[in-house]
Amino acid sequence: MENTNIKKIGILTGGGDCPGLNAVIRAAVKTAILQYGWKVTGIQDGFEGLLVDGKARPLLFDHVKDILDKGGTILGSSNRANPFEYKFKVHGKLVTEDRSPILLEKLQSMEIDALMVIGGDGTLSIAHRLHGLGVPIVGVPKTIDNDLASTDITFGFDTAINTATDALDKIRTTAESHHRVMVVEVMGRYAGWIALQAGIASGADIILIPEMPFKLEKIYEIIKERVRTGRHSSIIVVAEGANPEGGEMVIKKIVEDSADAIRLGGIGEILADKISSEIHVESRETVLGHIQRGGTPSAFDRILSTRLGVGAVKLLAEGNFGRMVCLRTPHIDSVPLEDAISQLKKVDPDSEVVQAAKAIGVSFGI
Amino acid sequence: MENTNIKKIGILTGGGDCPGLNAVIRAAVKTAILQYGWKVTGIQDGFEGLLVDGKARPLLFDHVKDILDKGGTILGSSNRANPFEYKFKVHGKLVTEDRSPILLEKLQSMEIDALMVIGGDGTLSIAHRLHGLGVPIVGVPKTIDNDLASTDITFGFDTAINTATDALDKIRTTAESHHRVMVVEVMGRYAGWIALQAGIASGADIILIPEMPFKLEKIYEIIKERVRTGRHSSIIVVAEGANPEGGEMVIKKIVEDSADAIRLGGIGEILADKISSEIHVESRETVLGHIQRGGTPSAFDRILSTRLGVGAVKLLAEGNFGRMVCLRTPHIDSVPLEDAISQLKKVDPDSEVVQAAKAIGVSFGI
Amino acid sequence: MENTNIKKIGILTGGGDCPGLNAVIRAAVKTAILQYGWKVTGIQDGFEGLLVDGKARPLLFDHVKDILDKGGTILGSSNRANPFEYKFKVHGKLVTEDRSPILLEKLQSMEIDALMVIGGDGTLSIAHRLHGLGVPIVGVPKTIDNDLASTDITFGFDTAINTATDALDKIRTTAESHHRVMVVEVMGRYAGWIALQAGIASGADIILIPEMPFKLEKIYEIIKERVRTGRHSSIIVVAEGANPEGGEMVIKKIVEDSADAIRLGGIGEILADKISSEIHVESRETVLGHIQRGGTPSAFDRILSTRLGVGAVKLLAEGNFGRMVCLRTPHIDSVPLEDAISQLKKVDPDSEVVQAAKAIGVSFGI
Amino acid sequence: MENTNIKKIGILTGGGDCPGLNAVIRAAVKTAILQYGWKVTGIQDGFEGLLVDGKARPLLFDHVKDILDKGGTILGSSNRANPFEYKFKVHGKLVTEDRSPILLEKLQSMEIDALMVIGGDGTLSIAHRLHGLGVPIVGVPKTIDNDLASTDITFGFDTAINTATDALDKIRTTAESHHRVMVVEVMGRYAGWIALQAGIASGADIILIPEMPFKLEKIYEIIKERVRTGRHSSIIVVAEGANPEGGEMVIKKIVEDSADAIRLGGIGEILADKISSEIHVESRETVLGHIQRGGTPSAFDRILSTRLGVGAVKLLAEGNFGRMVCLRTPHIDSVPLEDAISQLKKVDPDSEVVQAAKAIGVSFGI
Repeated sequence: MENTNIKKIGILTGGGDCPGLNAVIRAAVKTAILQYGWKVTGIQDGFEGLLVDGKARPLLFDHVKDILDKGGTILGSSNRANPFEYKFKVHGKLVTEDRSPILLEKLQSMEIDALMVIGGDGTLSIAHRLHGLGVPIVGVPKTIDNDLASTDITFGFDTAINTATDALDKIRTTAESHHRVMVVEVMGRYAGWIALQAGIASGADIILIPEMPFKLEKIYEIIKERVRTGRHSSIIVVAEGANPEGGEMVIKKIVEDSADAIRLGGIGEILADKISSEIHVESRETVLGHIQRGGTPSAFDRILSTRLGVGAVKLLAEGNFGRMVCLRTPHIDSVPLEDAISQLKKVDPDSEVVQAAKAIGVSFGI
Repeated sequence: MENTNIKKIGILTGGGDCPGLNAVIRAAVKTAILQYGWKVTGIQDGFEGLLVDGKARPLLFDHVKDILDKGGTILGSSNRANPFEYKFKVHGKLVTEDRSPILLEKLQSMEIDALMVIGGDGTLSIAHRLHGLGVPIVGVPKTIDNDLASTDITFGFDTAINTATDALDKIRTTAESHHRVMVVEVMGRYAGWIALQAGIASGADIILIPEMPFKLEKIYEIIKERVRTGRHSSIIVVAEGANPEGGEMVIKKIVEDSADAIRLGGIGEILADKISSEIHVESRETVLGHIQRGGTPSAFDRILSTRLGVGAVKLLAEGNFGRMVCLRTPHIDSVPLEDAISQLKKVDPDSEVVQAAKAIGVSFGI
Repeated sequence: MENTNIKKIGILTGGGDCPGLNAVIRAAVKTAILQYGWKVTGIQDGFEGLLVDGKARPLLFDHVKDILDKGGTILGSSNRANPFEYKFKVHGKLVTEDRSPILLEKLQSMEIDALMVIGGDGTLSIAHRLHGLGVPIVGVPKTIDNDLASTDITFGFDTAINTATDALDKIRTTAESHHRVMVVEVMGRYAGWIALQAGIASGADIILIPEMPFKLEKIYEIIKERVRTGRHSSIIVVAEGANPEGGEMVIKKIVEDSADAIRLGGIGEILADKISSEIHVESRETVLGHIQRGGTPSAFDRILSTRLGVGAVKLLAEGNFGRMVCLRTPHIDSVPLEDAISQLKKVDPDSEVVQAAKAIGVSFGI
Repeated sequence: MENTNIKKIGILTGGGDCPGLNAVIRAAVKTAILQYGWKVTGIQDGFEGLLVDGKARPLLFDHVKDILDKGGTILGSSNRANPFEYKFKVHGKLVTEDRSPILLEKLQSMEIDALMVIGGDGTLSIAHRLHGLGVPIVGVPKTIDNDLASTDITFGFDTAINTATDALDKIRTTAESHHRVMVVEVMGRYAGWIALQAGIASGADIILIPEMPFKLEKIYEIIKERVRTGRHSSIIVVAEGANPEGGEMVIKKIVEDSADAIRLGGIGEILADKISSEIHVESRETVLGHIQRGGTPSAFDRILSTRLGVGAVKLLAEGNFGRMVCLRTPHIDSVPLEDAISQLKKVDPDSEVVQAAKAIGVSFGI
């Protein structure tokens, strides 16, 4: 059935952390060895591992034996190593260079016949360009934000919303006992999936997402109305990329004695400050941050990751290069890498899920 | 938009426990009050609450305020109360009677204009018959086993596989440290969804499901081969309804001094006994049992339950009686109750998920 | 055995949130009713509930039936209501008044014979003064920080370190995969118990606590040495009250368009900024914040809370007023309220636990 | 300070699984290397690893890097290998032999200067005898049941009660919704610590422990009284070693076609059967089994394990052989191995904890 002459594949992971990376690696290694008799090389720290020496090692059964339930990636990752625009310092000055030729040489010298890359937008764009240079390559999509149009759902997302929901459950009892507005900032720079889903799952009163610019006045009004009717606590779940209508709000922070003196505060912090100072209702923010990216993957994410890992190896075996595996419920399918990276999946304000949230009284601040 | 004259609805839950029941109730109550201005009556202990007095009470906002993350059902449930075949004792003898006329009277006297029932096969069958008698009724499907053909996935299932996977994670470290075969029996009388998914998610070596009758000899062989190659521990996940080719295996238990002296042991117990006695590899069973049905629902289940609760109330508002809400990814949809209850969703041995499990070396004992 | 004429007691909770408050209330209500036949009044929002009308209600069995595993307090809390220095506004100006006479009247008019207060320093100081005015009163200590000298351990602390450890477990995998320094700020303004225990439990590399002022240079040195020897990730757990030798570090934040324009950043944020800018190792902070105060209490905290609740009611029954229950392992004991609030329990830098941490290579930044 | 000439130590783990074993190993390895410059040999599968070849390997930093939060033991364990009564088969017949001379030779040939053994009764008894033969040895106590008189608390116990409490939380919602008596069997053959603590922590109605033989009639009475007063659900937590007054209850199970045809059922199963058949209240049992022994250790257990591991290495360094480390709150201390293994710690029916449980209405079935 297989029309390829693959004897050895390389696997790498790129971009930010995401629960399920190890489960993808495990499934791919097992399938490659058991089903196809291939060898597998683990490439460390993303594409960086294909540009310098000593960052590749054989991946055997034993290496993936205990990693199904582990967060992180045993291969390490890197946000920065782009072989086409490799940045390094010469005499203290930053230089950019196209190192893709080195990468191609490396693949040849390591006798890697095909490449499987697990990563987000950035990583898959590089994969697409490498495929253009003739590298037999397949991609596995990774974004904790679930904002990829070409797949129904991405691994890690289910874990992230469970982690966020768990944190929100903890915060809600405090909000209720102590009559406070709790603002909880979750991930989601361009798409509000985590805020929307964790917000519904935790019974949030207000959900703020990038797709639906909010009105500060509306938020004040809701909270004041709640206080008037005896509900002194409120939970606001806000995506990090949410913004008020008409522009961004900013906190400048001055770090004393520090080189990069000023940096911006987050939307959660700003909202809590504003609510406290403008309508005099005690408000506190919590920024969930990195805990959303870590930890043991949920059952769903382990299964999805396993299926994607198996699916990616099958793509390679079938010679279906230049493609990305994806979930088309209920099946694993694939799309051209080109399509995969071109379109963001955003929350549709008119969708049934948003309507359901509104039906039970959730406000989106508009 | 709404073409009904509903002023008050009744809600009841029937059948076994399932995480998410309260989330459905909460969403329905909120939607009914906020969107349609209806009153809601909570009917207790399934259909039993429509046959006797004193088992109904108004459901207000306050009753559903804190139940989103609670297991169980605030309405109580009953496995037995079938109004069409109501069983009771007269002079010590069990009598069966059709009490549906009483139920219809009750609905009228309580001024309940429409009914929303949340339950499994049994409950929905009754709902279908009541609809035939002219009761404006809609159903919400509930089965922890996820074995309903008319919906992509049922609430509670995601929680159940997370609970099972968590338990399996705990058991695996013991299996490895102590060189044992651990047999873990999970729910699934007619369909093996929990065993399949929790098995993949936990890295099980052998998964046994009703849809794929197993060979004992094959299991012995795999374990012996694993021992031969230095893998002294194995994890077997078995659905309670799994059976060997050609028939059932049975343990008879004699309870001393007990009226009903003999009862049957479960498949997990039998397998562990057999493996210990036949191939002399130390084996232990764990029966997960009721913990799979309880506890706080996962984020996914809370969201799905919320959407189904909103969707069911909308069906009522639209006058779409005699139907059941369901998930047709990514939307909430509905089907006639008639179709809803007629077909079991079983694991397809040739499906991509089963193939993926096989690709990474999982055996199904065949 | 009992020498008191108590017929009704009041219970209130004061101060910040802490897992186990509800378990104390439940145990006290059950013991009061079952063992002594007393009535119980639940006073809402701390001492506030004894100063205004309509903030007290009977506490019956049914009210405490389902609260053992719930975070928060069903009685509500308030950080501000001090009857001896009650603050309120007259014509927009803040006025302070001694309202203890009103409180005494209230107790009498509500026929509350004795008071049980659950709270921290502030709440117990008020209790002590009320006892001086003749109120039959006992205290139950509450501090998430575990910094009370007169009891071995306070409820809520075990839950807090489990929550922090769970978060740190999630963060560690990301740190390792992505070669980062992760700074995690936990609670502990004056004492470093949470940082110390969660730090050891999570395998932190550096633990910074108020009791051991750190040297920034030492931290830089450790991280650089770790990088040199191939350990590119490090975990720093820092108590919010930790400080460098010789003074505080400060971030000023300017909130644009905000009345109270400037507020201070936390130590975690400062440290991550400094490490990134000074030694150019990528560093991120996470501030765990309120999630440490919420959620279902751990088994240990539920048991301890139950024992303290029972013990406090027994003190009342024995007429042992003016005292606070405490844990003197393995028994529940009591101390005069006077002693209870006078001394902070701090981490001893020479203690066996700190030495054990050092023995396995943990640095305290000194 | 150290008066020993140790250059290399061996570590082994024996007996049943217990969360925290790996944390002890990690702390011991780190302390041995960092504080004393020793080498460490990991001995596999308990004393078995000192009797056969190829079961020992160097333990380096890298081996213990990621094991703090892992259940099980990286060294493996064995319940059976007693060097003084080593059992093996000759021509199909079981022979017992004293192989301690072989063990002593092995220690010498591997240049292991001292031994640290982590285990329960059996393992520590062997350690004591080996010490009598001149082996420099220290012990670390391990029993999930917490039934060792010579230490305040043993690691793993806190994790076990959290696991049991978590399972009981799940089961309670089902019990309540479905009006059932749920019997949950937990570990504790000779002492009822887990049942007592998990029972209190989960709000159980009846707790049955070996130290307090119960009356079946009393249990029936309580359940019937509860039903009479509208509380149709009850939770019974029973230790596996609990028994009725006057003797054991037995279920015989006949395994068809099986060599060892009959085995005994557990107390949980018997109780549920009896309650269903005798007083006709629907009752179900859940046997928690091995999940109590596995999983990631709680924060408390990780810290206690770390302290014990450091403490045991210090005992070796000080030449304090023949002793066992223990917790004497709040310090780590030590006792002679001889004393350590001689006395069981049982639940005192008159203790404050049992009294507290009774005060809130828990019955012990007497």
